[in-house]
Amino acid sequence: MGLEQKATPFSILTEGSITTPKGFTAGGLHCGLKKSTRHDLGAIVCEVPAAAAGVYTTNLFQAAPLKVTRESIGSDGRLRAVIVNSGNANAVTGKQGEADAYEMRDRFAEQIGAAADEVAVASTGVIGELLKMDRVRTGIDALPEKLASDRAGADDFCQAILTTDLVQKMVCVSVEIDGRTVHVAGASKGSGMIHPNMATMLGFVTTDANIGSEALQQLLREVTNYTFNMITVDGDTSTNDMLVAMASGLAGNEELTSAHAGYADFAAALRYVCEVLAKAIARDGEGATKLVEVQVRGAASDDSARAIAKTIIGSSLVKSAVFGADANWGRIIAAAGRAGEPLNPETVDVSIGDILTLEQSRPVAFDEEAALEYLKGDTVVIHVDLHMDGGGSATAWGCDLTYDYVRINAAYRT
Amino acid sequence: MGLEQKATPFSILTEGSITTPKGFTAGGLHCGLKKSTRHDLGAIVCEVPAAAAGVYTTNLFQAAPLKVTRESIGSDGRLRAVIVNSGNANAVTGKQGEADAYEMRDRFAEQIGAAADEVAVASTGVIGELLKMDRVRTGIDALPEKLASDRAGADDFCQAILTTDLVQKMVCVSVEIDGRTVHVAGASKGSGMIHPNMATMLGFVTTDANIGSEALQQLLREVTNYTFNMITVDGDTSTNDMLVAMASGLAGNEELTSAHAGYADFAAALRYVCEVLAKAIARDGEGATKLVEVQVRGAASDDSARAIAKTIIGSSLVKSAVFGADANWGRIIAAAGRAGEPLNPETVDVSIGDILTLEQSRPVAFDEEAALEYLKGDTVVIHVDLHMDGGGSATAWGCDLTYDYVRINAAYRT
Repeated sequence: MGLEQKATPFSILTEGSITTPKGFTAGGLHCGLKKSTRHDLGAIVCEVPAAAAGVYTTNLFQAAPLKVTRESIGSDGRLRAVIVNSGNANAVTGKQGEADAYEMRDRFAEQIGAAADEVAVASTGVIGELLKMDRVRTGIDALPEKLASDRAGADDFCQAILTTDLVQKMVCVSVEIDGRTVHVAGASKGSGMIHPNMATMLGFVTTDANIGSEALQQLLREVTNYTFNMITVDGDTSTNDMLVAMASGLAGNEELTSAHAGYADFAAALRYVCEVLAKAIARDGEGATKLVEVQVRGAASDDSARAIAKTIIGSSLVKSAVFGADANWGRIIAAAGRAGEPLNPETVDVSIGDILTLEQSRPVAFDEEAALEYLKGDTVVIHVDLHMDGGGSATAWGCDLTYDYVRINAAYRT
Repeated sequence: MGLEQKATPFSILTEGSITTPKGFTAGGLHCGLKKSTRHDLGAIVCEVPAAAAGVYTTNLFQAAPLKVTRESIGSDGRLRAVIVNSGNANAVTGKQGEADAYEMRDRFAEQIGAAADEVAVASTGVIGELLKMDRVRTGIDALPEKLASDRAGADDFCQAILTTDLVQKMVCVSVEIDGRTVHVAGASKGSGMIHPNMATMLGFVTTDANIGSEALQQLLREVTNYTFNMITVDGDTSTNDMLVAMASGLAGNEELTSAHAGYADFAAALRYVCEVLAKAIARDGEGATKLVEVQVRGAASDDSARAIAKTIIGSSLVKSAVFGADANWGRIIAAAGRAGEPLNPETVDVSIGDILTLEQSRPVAFDEEAALEYLKGDTVVIHVDLHMDGGGSATAWGCDLTYDYVRINAAYRT
């Protein structure tokens, strides 16, 4: 499946962005959906029809734009553009919401000279309110002249998709395939209602790789399971989660299939891009002060390890303890024990960073000062080894639970 | 199964307690497991061998006292007493922890002249630390003279089982069976790590009903599914959850079996007692300012309704919104939509108290002032009607998510 870990086959381009892959421009502006003056409408456009793939929320309430995007990608696996607004999720908005999402698609398609079904739509923000379409229309008409192939255009797009996020999230890598330089880049948003299941928040991947939409779709789904689906902020799966990938093919490599020698390298690059974006969302979780990483190994299977890692990372008690810099391994194993997965309660090790706190389910005397110091850091890694046959492993990411999470969410809608 | 709702067949005894049922005494004292001077060791004793039943946490890490209690109840379905300490959960404490739990059982059995297997043991508090047994021993030896059949003894017991609880939780009802007055009473503790699965926290039920231990066991399990298993504070299932019921039989009724005409009345009384205790735990959830009740109806089945109700009540976003008095129905349906249960996203009604906010999945203009006023109250009831064939229904209880929850749990262990 091309996801085996190996020596990194790609280079990180710190100055790169979603417009670095050949063929892409991006931009954003403020049309008036947010109360602030921050950007709230943006787009990524490809100069050629890009092979496209998407994964979507499993929430049964799916926002109108997801319907439109599924349809656009489903028609022939090609996209010229994705248009995104923040400040309003266009979710649970009925027939009018659907009509609005279609109008966004059609109007922007006309602006850039694309077919309607070559445009995807994404929205994020408050649930249950109709879009102020007069403002959206004005914004869409002004958007084409904001599109640029440079970093500024990419930054404007990234700003336009944020809600309660504090930082923008973007990454770009390059990988050599068939002697050509292939770029893979991505941008994402997400801070609350984060507990992806099959897809996540809003994520956008651009690449100039030559790859068919079916191969891209399969790869995107696999990579999502190791990246976006392994993060949680608050256990709440959104109605609007969407990850869209567009491949322009302009890098000029031979078409990537699972038989291609460069497939694994491309998969590794894509996985890295998605992992960086996913971790950035966890780190920027509402109110978070830290990124928390849970590594489970020695589980009955990889799936079992994934379930246990996600239960630990989602535990409010574990998250509160990390916020309080408390090396509370009792809460960690209590979470593991309720995950509904097999484990032997007599053979569990828990380390917090390098500090062993539980060995073969027996408490270990450890340096509390050192643990406090470690837990005060920006990133906390929790290692759990179950010592089960099967040797399953998984990594999940999340954040701490803080006063600010409560403050933000006690007063979000109003 | 005797759990049908009907006109209340029982009377609430506001002055009653766990020592009101005939044959029971209770008491508590401070032996030094808690840093404060609050009681931390208590017991309920029955003057005759009581028919006994227990349900326990499904967490795979089970504390030592659960092993002992299972064994005692399992031997012949009879208990003379249950001894409980707070301040230390005696969980993940290995062989020494087990030895300590057995010693608690044996020493208290000797003090009251009971057989060792007639005594149950329960513990609650910090995970992973050994009990200070010198203090426990001194406490056990002093406990018998603290036992009393009055309200003061019951209050002392209730105090002794609390940890981060703010209030004690006790209830007593009476029901007429065979012309005899049968009492059913209960006490519980629980404030954090509350997301019971099959059992819960610590709960103790006393009754003077004449009922066999097998019938009591079956009834207790059924009632638990409608009461303790329908509450959540933080989604974390504890390692120490335990609910123990003791029936002295001294009321003198004919033995209660499912064939007995008074069985349903007794079941209703037991269910009421467990529901009051369960709701009290939810209301006293760590940091909570409100009791939240979620009523789901029109689901595909009762089980489906239960899963949806528990997902809504457990949503950090819903809980934060309730704390902020925000009528955020979007988060309510987002939680319903990710519960993994069937629903039609086009036919959902949501009311907050009497205020309809969503009808057939369409937002309803409602009086925001009135909603704010309602949400500021002590109890918030959320009604969700899915309008599915099957007409399944369920009620779940929880609390809001507040700054104080984070404060309490960021600094619990240290």
